[in-house]
Amino acid sequence: MQVDKPHSNCGVFGIFNSQAAAVNTYYGLHALQHRGQEAAGIVTIDNNGDGKNHVNHHKGLGLVSEVFSDSKVFENLKGNSAIGHNRYSTTGSAGSVKNIQPFFVQYRMGNLAVSHNGNLTNSRIIREKLVNEGAIFQTSSDTEVILHLIARSRLENQIEQIADALKQVSGAYSLTILTDSKLIGARDPNGIRPLCIGKLNGSYIITSETCALDILSAEYIRDVEPGELVVIDEEVIQTGKIKSFRITEDYSIKKHCIFEYIYFSRPDSKIFGSNVDKMRRKLGKVLATHHPVQDDKGEKVIVMSVPDSSNTAAIGYENQLSKMGIPSKLEIGLIRSHYIGRTFITPGQANREVGVRIKFNTVKGVLENRTVVLIDDSIVRGTTSKQLVKLIREANPKEIHFRISSPPIHHPCHYGMDFPSKSELIANKFEDIEKIRKYLEVDSLAYLTHEQMLEAMVDHAPDSFCTACFSGDYPIPIDAYFQKEQYEL
Amino acid sequence: MQVDKPHSNCGVFGIFNSQAAAVNTYYGLHALQHRGQEAAGIVTIDNNGDGKNHVNHHKGLGLVSEVFSDSKVFENLKGNSAIGHNRYSTTGSAGSVKNIQPFFVQYRMGNLAVSHNGNLTNSRIIREKLVNEGAIFQTSSDTEVILHLIARSRLENQIEQIADALKQVSGAYSLTILTDSKLIGARDPNGIRPLCIGKLNGSYIITSETCALDILSAEYIRDVEPGELVVIDEEVIQTGKIKSFRITEDYSIKKHCIFEYIYFSRPDSKIFGSNVDKMRRKLGKVLATHHPVQDDKGEKVIVMSVPDSSNTAAIGYENQLSKMGIPSKLEIGLIRSHYIGRTFITPGQANREVGVRIKFNTVKGVLENRTVVLIDDSIVRGTTSKQLVKLIREANPKEIHFRISSPPIHHPCHYGMDFPSKSELIANKFEDIEKIRKYLEVDSLAYLTHEQMLEAMVDHAPDSFCTACFSGDYPIPIDAYFQKEQYEL
Amino acid sequence: MQVDKPHSNCGVFGIFNSQAAAVNTYYGLHALQHRGQEAAGIVTIDNNGDGKNHVNHHKGLGLVSEVFSDSKVFENLKGNSAIGHNRYSTTGSAGSVKNIQPFFVQYRMGNLAVSHNGNLTNSRIIREKLVNEGAIFQTSSDTEVILHLIARSRLENQIEQIADALKQVSGAYSLTILTDSKLIGARDPNGIRPLCIGKLNGSYIITSETCALDILSAEYIRDVEPGELVVIDEEVIQTGKIKSFRITEDYSIKKHCIFEYIYFSRPDSKIFGSNVDKMRRKLGKVLATHHPVQDDKGEKVIVMSVPDSSNTAAIGYENQLSKMGIPSKLEIGLIRSHYIGRTFITPGQANREVGVRIKFNTVKGVLENRTVVLIDDSIVRGTTSKQLVKLIREANPKEIHFRISSPPIHHPCHYGMDFPSKSELIANKFEDIEKIRKYLEVDSLAYLTHEQMLEAMVDHAPDSFCTACFSGDYPIPIDAYFQKEQYEL
Amino acid sequence: MQVDKPHSNCGVFGIFNSQAAAVNTYYGLHALQHRGQEAAGIVTIDNNGDGKNHVNHHKGLGLVSEVFSDSKVFENLKGNSAIGHNRYSTTGSAGSVKNIQPFFVQYRMGNLAVSHNGNLTNSRIIREKLVNEGAIFQTSSDTEVILHLIARSRLENQIEQIADALKQVSGAYSLTILTDSKLIGARDPNGIRPLCIGKLNGSYIITSETCALDILSAEYIRDVEPGELVVIDEEVIQTGKIKSFRITEDYSIKKHCIFEYIYFSRPDSKIFGSNVDKMRRKLGKVLATHHPVQDDKGEKVIVMSVPDSSNTAAIGYENQLSKMGIPSKLEIGLIRSHYIGRTFITPGQANREVGVRIKFNTVKGVLENRTVVLIDDSIVRGTTSKQLVKLIREANPKEIHFRISSPPIHHPCHYGMDFPSKSELIANKFEDIEKIRKYLEVDSLAYLTHEQMLEAMVDHAPDSFCTACFSGDYPIPIDAYFQKEQYEL
Repeated sequence: MQVDKPHSNCGVFGIFNSQAAAVNTYYGLHALQHRGQEAAGIVTIDNNGDGKNHVNHHKGLGLVSEVFSDSKVFENLKGNSAIGHNRYSTTGSAGSVKNIQPFFVQYRMGNLAVSHNGNLTNSRIIREKLVNEGAIFQTSSDTEVILHLIARSRLENQIEQIADALKQVSGAYSLTILTDSKLIGARDPNGIRPLCIGKLNGSYIITSETCALDILSAEYIRDVEPGELVVIDEEVIQTGKIKSFRITEDYSIKKHCIFEYIYFSRPDSKIFGSNVDKMRRKLGKVLATHHPVQDDKGEKVIVMSVPDSSNTAAIGYENQLSKMGIPSKLEIGLIRSHYIGRTFITPGQANREVGVRIKFNTVKGVLENRTVVLIDDSIVRGTTSKQLVKLIREANPKEIHFRISSPPIHHPCHYGMDFPSKSELIANKFEDIEKIRKYLEVDSLAYLTHEQMLEAMVDHAPDSFCTACFSGDYPIPIDAYFQKEQYEL
Repeated sequence: MQVDKPHSNCGVFGIFNSQAAAVNTYYGLHALQHRGQEAAGIVTIDNNGDGKNHVNHHKGLGLVSEVFSDSKVFENLKGNSAIGHNRYSTTGSAGSVKNIQPFFVQYRMGNLAVSHNGNLTNSRIIREKLVNEGAIFQTSSDTEVILHLIARSRLENQIEQIADALKQVSGAYSLTILTDSKLIGARDPNGIRPLCIGKLNGSYIITSETCALDILSAEYIRDVEPGELVVIDEEVIQTGKIKSFRITEDYSIKKHCIFEYIYFSRPDSKIFGSNVDKMRRKLGKVLATHHPVQDDKGEKVIVMSVPDSSNTAAIGYENQLSKMGIPSKLEIGLIRSHYIGRTFITPGQANREVGVRIKFNTVKGVLENRTVVLIDDSIVRGTTSKQLVKLIREANPKEIHFRISSPPIHHPCHYGMDFPSKSELIANKFEDIEKIRKYLEVDSLAYLTHEQMLEAMVDHAPDSFCTACFSGDYPIPIDAYFQKEQYEL
Repeated sequence: MQVDKPHSNCGVFGIFNSQAAAVNTYYGLHALQHRGQEAAGIVTIDNNGDGKNHVNHHKGLGLVSEVFSDSKVFENLKGNSAIGHNRYSTTGSAGSVKNIQPFFVQYRMGNLAVSHNGNLTNSRIIREKLVNEGAIFQTSSDTEVILHLIARSRLENQIEQIADALKQVSGAYSLTILTDSKLIGARDPNGIRPLCIGKLNGSYIITSETCALDILSAEYIRDVEPGELVVIDEEVIQTGKIKSFRITEDYSIKKHCIFEYIYFSRPDSKIFGSNVDKMRRKLGKVLATHHPVQDDKGEKVIVMSVPDSSNTAAIGYENQLSKMGIPSKLEIGLIRSHYIGRTFITPGQANREVGVRIKFNTVKGVLENRTVVLIDDSIVRGTTSKQLVKLIREANPKEIHFRISSPPIHHPCHYGMDFPSKSELIANKFEDIEKIRKYLEVDSLAYLTHEQMLEAMVDHAPDSFCTACFSGDYPIPIDAYFQKEQYEL
Repeated sequence: MQVDKPHSNCGVFGIFNSQAAAVNTYYGLHALQHRGQEAAGIVTIDNNGDGKNHVNHHKGLGLVSEVFSDSKVFENLKGNSAIGHNRYSTTGSAGSVKNIQPFFVQYRMGNLAVSHNGNLTNSRIIREKLVNEGAIFQTSSDTEVILHLIARSRLENQIEQIADALKQVSGAYSLTILTDSKLIGARDPNGIRPLCIGKLNGSYIITSETCALDILSAEYIRDVEPGELVVIDEEVIQTGKIKSFRITEDYSIKKHCIFEYIYFSRPDSKIFGSNVDKMRRKLGKVLATHHPVQDDKGEKVIVMSVPDSSNTAAIGYENQLSKMGIPSKLEIGLIRSHYIGRTFITPGQANREVGVRIKFNTVKGVLENRTVVLIDDSIVRGTTSKQLVKLIREANPKEIHFRISSPPIHHPCHYGMDFPSKSELIANKFEDIEKIRKYLEVDSLAYLTHEQMLEAMVDHAPDSFCTACFSGDYPIPIDAYFQKEQYEL
């Protein structure tokens, strides 16, 4: 059973000057597993004393724990610096292994490895130009364009080459780059995806979310700023001063992906300057303020989440109801099975009723004859939601009220999220929310409005977010080929 | 990272008269995955029209989803009746596959397959006797004894043979047995482990917990009674009347494993006549009544669980605190990673700090400067608890109070749970609870007493439980060889 | 591409008192790989100093090199004694692993493991009797009957128990049996399959063919005699005197499987008292004597074999032609690919011409315009022969004369060879040899007659062979159920 | 056990306009398995009607039968044209998959896939130049240089681009190249490695050896000439006229690798204009002429080969002895096991005697008290030879005379063969042949001299061969970096 959520493309991790660079990267990728579950890879660079740098790597399809299930793998992943990558999906089964990051190549300055979270919006145009100049491409990935631009830069300094390359691309990117002597982090000028810096004893880490620092007991230093290129090298280790460069001098307004707060990032992470947990809870509170539910007999309303991604919003919702004086109670109304790995199959058509029950079951006694508020963070296709409502209905609640801690999703993301096609989105299938309510067969349905969502974003300017999937307002222009490329290659 | 909990040995499932017997068994086993995660197997019996019954099987090490990851497997698992088994562990890597259930053999009445949850306490004595009579044993499992006793019975009726065999064994058993024409369920006279009957259209199901019925949208009929042997055959399908026999005429007092309510069974199941969720919540409430926590400044106490097994008890605890007028709030203070499968490795000793962080991380903002009550259902060795407390301490709570919704565990289980050795149990390592508190470095620690635990068991007579792991009071005598057998074979 | 030859069921190996018992067994099984290529297994018995004997095993489908491709396997196969088994085929994919030998069980005298080459002819009758007495069977194999008979013997001495069991069975068996303190070899009273004894430093070996001694540089001592049971134990190690018992006092006439000389055994082995190479060469010589080929222009006749099994017979044939003054020349006219493992697939029907070419190609220059004699040891279905002839014809020989160093095969084997059904045998499909010749499209075809075949068996009495597959003259009676059992179970 | 022979790097295959392009390539690669056993791959190009060309591929480590053991793979390998590659070895375990050919990329003219047999001698210099121009390299393979040169050519016609690229490289190459609309074959101006053209119904094939045509019943058309570039496209299919271009107008003298005749190519292939079998037999005859062996008592000398590579030379040797009137007899003195796949392990040091016995055993009766001539095609390290002689000695021959159908190997190959380091070659370890004889413990030892070897090359000009490994006379200059590159990358 596929989860009915948008999918992020990746988690990135890099570490410099660590005696256990590969193992620490492995743990970091494990902490970032929620950002991509289809493939994982680690690349290390090792100077084994022979005066030459050796690149080692291991990649594969599956969870981090599956790809790195043999400890012998780590014997080959020698070196004091490493980068890693989790990936949501690889396009096409046959070519898939080729598309697993980190990518690594040899160019005139030596070795170069890259992990990328995000999506470039002008990669097709650049690719055509490069190809015409005689470049050869191994993959269909936009990330490969960055490698070519770096290799072709006529500048002599490696950092300047990288900045030169990044100046030419637009879109979303949080990158960790490994060279023979440096770990580099770079983030697009709008800071669409998160990227932060940490420190672990003598090592420096650059990674997507702080939860990847926590697993290593590493210290959070600061975020990589939008448009910033940070460099960690021997000198940084000595001086303790992280080197910082601007990719572009233009000041760009921040456009953080608001979906990172709504669903993607882990609640225990701090991104864009705030704890995810706090923002998600706030979304729940604002949802309760504007869309409360009361029992007509004055009995306690049962607030329950679709576990686990909506747990925090549900807490916020129930807390706010209480504060508003509405009798309510947080309950675990759905039990979720966590034993469904990549390999779970649903053989035959023997039992069409199974569906959502593979993942969820209701706690019957808790729901019987109660007014239930079901909290979810978002609805994409709505298929799972419909099945869930049917399942909950069997536990005989009095009423089911469905509350969504974000607005309806109407538009594709061009900056790294993977949505179904526009026509499959439930919000585009039905004329209005009432029609969706009828389809889902709930007693009431409410989403946050765009304004209510931004209201929840305390400590952040309302215009500092990309909300394109809700609003269609794309902060970065998309090249003509883009959509074609995204779906066809 | 091993979970620091006792391990149940098995989940059993059987279905009769289903066109998708194997597939339904697969889903049932998936729903019972929490009862055993090391191995799984399905056996079907098929009359393919040639007048002969064919036994088909598929078994393997791993989760149900791993063992049955290839849908082609189901093409071989033909037949309208099936039984399945989940197993916690198999002793010894080399011999392991041999020990995966269901066991199946040919004997004078035809085919016979058995799935067993529980542990026989006189199997060694019977085995010796059988061996002296010329029986040969394939495995070290106590379950094989049952097969031999059935095959050697001189009675002519198959049901009588089975009853004859079961009369001779003592201990805990919830069995599903498949023969060429019948599905049989049997439960020991004390009803130590759960076993229930369900119906799905024209099919009958016998299985450990009702959650395995729910996944199939099957209807719960009733429990198999302690000491009862139920038979499903063609006639039952026709008449709709389940055939019931007594294994022994002696009336035995019920001795349900109380740990099924505390930790093993799924909260969405109904066992021993009550919803597990309800009993577990009640344990939390009684825990709050006798061992409340208050903030000295009158601020809301943060109640948090060790997810996911203690979630329900934590809700009960917080509800009771509120009822008692103590300001409190339920929070998700720990995020648990569910991406740790069987294959997760912790390479090298590079980062000793990783430990519990592979599985848990704190939500920092929620805990800072707060009085925290951490709820867990039980402590076995205490190693994970100690690491967890240390992790939570880093989020800077004011105080950490640790509350356990069961008494200290002092004794091994001889009826199907797998504990570490007596000397490894934390309750046996320290003289008193205060010493355990110091070791765990919490501000206060409280367990339920034996009486308080039974107080929570509403709707149940206090003497209807086996509480041997807490009290050392074993309701069924153990044969002299037993302990030896349990650990050595 | 299946080889068109009868298949032997097994190779057996056992070793006692070796510090590398499992590894030596592995090499022994590798040397016996030609006797069975579908599955392999090793069982060791280890007294690891705790006063108890531990049975270790490893089994799997495939070649010895595939089943034992991980050297870690040997770390588990501890113990100073071991037996092993190669198997030709396992019936049914699902149940297959269960049928891989050696079988091992626990019975009243302790551990017991058995490897069996051959086929019992009264196993069904015995099995029925045992089942009626309450025995349970795990497999459909006739070998399991032997285990039960041993376990049920009321005699007190283990050797007597085994002899008691073997007295009750009839048919073909060459067995290696391992107990807690002994390695035992046993051979049926007719000595149908080979079995020999060797010595390697302080260790004793019992195995199917001497090539398994040669690979270890072990010394050949003698054959296990028909009807003999030899015992190797600590005392034998001390005294150097192999203990020998008679299974039955009746003197039975030897009935060696003549096909072991014709095709099965390796030419570098010595079985039944003679070098296989010598007998096979003699078959070729007798073939030339009675069925010579001459070129009509007096040019040298090209003698070529179907590699590799007919190489020796071809040498004999050419040598005899020369001796008879017929101009001739041995040539390698066919190149055989040895890269076809178990996994070779022939996808699609794209190229129907491929067929035999996957395995063979002609050396064109050698055959052009020459009179060619193609030597093969036997023809079963004839399908491969027909394709081969067509292939050779493309190399433009003047004539192709086909010579077979055994008589036509008309009957099934009940003593351990696996043939296609009677109606598939080419000799039963056509009325006479001339009709077969036409079908195969060769210029002439000749088999050895039954008398000519026996004429080649120098040093052996003509009546000392089982020739049932040629003659239909079965030396051991077959029970009524047998044929049914053989094909259906 | 590693074979003590030089290793060829590759076999190449390409097919155009075949409805079963991938399957035919699979069979072709199987026929070429002897040229590379460590890895295999197939790339197809498919226009599935959507106006775009799709590249499909499957690659893996192992034999062709292992890499393509799942027929589902072929469902993905759609397309009417395909190229394939067998590889001897990949350097480094971690990076190995990346180095498996065919390589395929996208460049400005579309898709491009390449399979290469041979070794470029100026690749390092070209690579440096390309890298300085901004090219990025994925692998350490010299073949990747060709891809870049093609992509960077400023010429507009694809064939001219390829010719332009090949003009810049020197060394040995037999290439099959696949583009969106063409199959191209190219061979270096010296024609070092073989390459031929075949036809199968409406399809054209370009491949290393004719045995890959034979397996498909394809017709041999002609060789690709040294310095020729042949093109197969739709027009060729229509007209039946293969398009031919010259890579360079300079006439280069042929320098065929003489080792292809001595050992590499299959005896049933025709390469460089002659049947391999014929040339190999002639080497044996010349060997007998110059280095005959006679028994001192006038008994027949036993001529035996080291199977299977020396079988043909042994036949030639024996035929010549006979012609010279020396009593002799061809015998199979060694049985070779063909069950040793890639996975065969030799666990522990339990039995140091095993060694060569894993692969060979003697046929004892044949050798006893006889004067034996052992024929081998070459000796590299000599380790296996020494063990073999010891093994044969145990069969008690009167004398062992060792005859080698090529000269001593003193020098590395820079054109595609993989040798051990110079110091490991037995011919460099000992001062003279007498010293080698003593080391090998044979009664006499003789190699062919350089002149004798060329004497055997009937139908070929003596200067038309590269004999560098024997003579050190390298026909193509090696760039300074070459040796470094060859061993280090």
